[in-house]
Amino acid sequence: MTRFASLDDLRTACLDLPDGDSEAAAEVSRREAVLTKPPRSLGRLEEMVAWLARWQGRNPPRLNNIEILVFAGNHGVTAKGVSAYPPEVTAQMVNNFASGGAAINQLAHVAGAELRVVALSLETPTADFTESPAMDEDEFLDAVSSGYDALSPEADLVVLGEMGIGNTTAAAAVSAALFGGGSRFAGHGTGIDDAGLKRKRDVIDQALTRHADALNDPLGVAASLGGRELAAILGACLAARHACIPTVLDGFVCTAAVAPLAKLHTGALDHVLAGHLSSESGHRLLLLELGLRPLLDLGMRLGEGSGAAVAVLVLRAALACHTGMATFADLQVTDKPG
Amino acid sequence: MTRFASLDDLRTACLDLPDGDSEAAAEVSRREAVLTKPPRSLGRLEEMVAWLARWQGRNPPRLNNIEILVFAGNHGVTAKGVSAYPPEVTAQMVNNFASGGAAINQLAHVAGAELRVVALSLETPTADFTESPAMDEDEFLDAVSSGYDALSPEADLVVLGEMGIGNTTAAAAVSAALFGGGSRFAGHGTGIDDAGLKRKRDVIDQALTRHADALNDPLGVAASLGGRELAAILGACLAARHACIPTVLDGFVCTAAVAPLAKLHTGALDHVLAGHLSSESGHRLLLLELGLRPLLDLGMRLGEGSGAAVAVLVLRAALACHTGMATFADLQVTDKPG
Repeated sequence: MTRFASLDDLRTACLDLPDGDSEAAAEVSRREAVLTKPPRSLGRLEEMVAWLARWQGRNPPRLNNIEILVFAGNHGVTAKGVSAYPPEVTAQMVNNFASGGAAINQLAHVAGAELRVVALSLETPTADFTESPAMDEDEFLDAVSSGYDALSPEADLVVLGEMGIGNTTAAAAVSAALFGGGSRFAGHGTGIDDAGLKRKRDVIDQALTRHADALNDPLGVAASLGGRELAAILGACLAARHACIPTVLDGFVCTAAVAPLAKLHTGALDHVLAGHLSSESGHRLLLLELGLRPLLDLGMRLGEGSGAAVAVLVLRAALACHTGMATFADLQVTDKPG
Repeated sequence: MTRFASLDDLRTACLDLPDGDSEAAAEVSRREAVLTKPPRSLGRLEEMVAWLARWQGRNPPRLNNIEILVFAGNHGVTAKGVSAYPPEVTAQMVNNFASGGAAINQLAHVAGAELRVVALSLETPTADFTESPAMDEDEFLDAVSSGYDALSPEADLVVLGEMGIGNTTAAAAVSAALFGGGSRFAGHGTGIDDAGLKRKRDVIDQALTRHADALNDPLGVAASLGGRELAAILGACLAARHACIPTVLDGFVCTAAVAPLAKLHTGALDHVLAGHLSSESGHRLLLLELGLRPLLDLGMRLGEGSGAAVAVLVLRAALACHTGMATFADLQVTDKPG
């Protein structure tokens, strides 16, 4: 028994979204204005604190309990030679996460965050979506539900990441189905060569043609062209919205995973921060379509939640300034223009 | 008795610069290539570790001892109404640093860095440079020496910051003198209005005309148009190069302060990272002139070393990945294209 028994159940949940707490955000802004600095001189740091307060419904917000959720899945489309790595690397990297040897393990430690990895039926890849839908309705709803239920409702902040050989192909196909433009979202992924990129583009074009009938429905797009880890990320992002937990996205695959939510409901990603701009080329295009402005641009393209975890460091810096700084009144610093 | 007895002494020191350790940097790159991730997928994080290793001459580099040096000075040119705040705010903010209430106090804590503030003759502002050189040779050399001697030679990394009402005017004048284009480097600073910006531009144009004879010598520019805190930052940056300590610059004022070093000797800033892009408009132009690529772009324009301190968090993340990640050999992960 999954949390969402039908696509219609899920769709209803995607339309029933709480708003943020504008008063908590306004309280943050009022305090920022009297801290010992020129107004707005901390730039996005100030915006980030207001965003945390809005979605936590609390001033000051807190970052005591940060959860990084990494979902892993396998993709039948890897049979078409779209990735630089073979699909068994997905499970090997999940083992690496478990033994603490991956980038995200180090970054979670630096960020003071809890890392949880959810491997989704790695032994049963999704179907090759050039031949049939990646997932049938039950498989898709199972994966969404896994993501939804993975989130701890007590988290102050959730960071979403992924691992899945072949998943930039799925992400590019989902993005194209939602926003048009064919294979423009395809990039070099983990490091495929130009011939591989050509195969990847062809695969995406084939899939868009084959599933044309399903592409009017954003959830149909996610099921037909996505993957289990993308579906779980969609579920976790939705759960975070329902629980009013601000959410940091990693790169291209994560962003494509939650894009169907934005297509279903304007403002569905208001609780979401794009942690960074990936150097995977489709990410910039997709962020533009979604109106999301990434916090960092460090040329990263690893996935695993790595870019988002670095963004958490900036959020910690922002919150430390907000809560720790003196006000003009405290210091008797001259706050008026001379 | 100051460290530099004459401008010629200082000039000689500015030309005698050690190179970085290419082998340490190459060792970093060799290790990065076998860590469990696609090659170069950590982007600038990998570059940052190589840069730390190059300038520390050590692989792995370390970040045990991070020093934030904030220099404060006052500027006679504030009499011309170029700032949104009166000059007494410089000393008030130095008190704020001492009592722990400023942004940089919170950020130093988050970054695990030691903060040291050096106030330079705040009761004696530099001369109004529309009327005479900001500093005479002795005053300039004293300030440079103060900065040079403030650096602990044991630091693993130094972060340079500043406080000084009126100092974006000095920074814009220095930048224009070095790179041309009149008052194009002038911006709104701490928040001056458009009439104030017009005054600021006029002041810069007047100063460039008055000191035209001194502007062929980068050190003459720094003395005539800069300020004590800018001179001290130049000295600290030079000391860091001599001691092979990688150095993170804050925003526009810090960058202008060290720009004379680059004019005196190509590569003089190779040990320097631009920690962030300030939203003060001249910073982007100046970084372009110097060929420096900022690590962060967070819309910050506070000074105090604040943007550079946030950049330190990224360096910590980079180093944690480099030292903590497993290799393909450790994990028996498939590292070959499939």
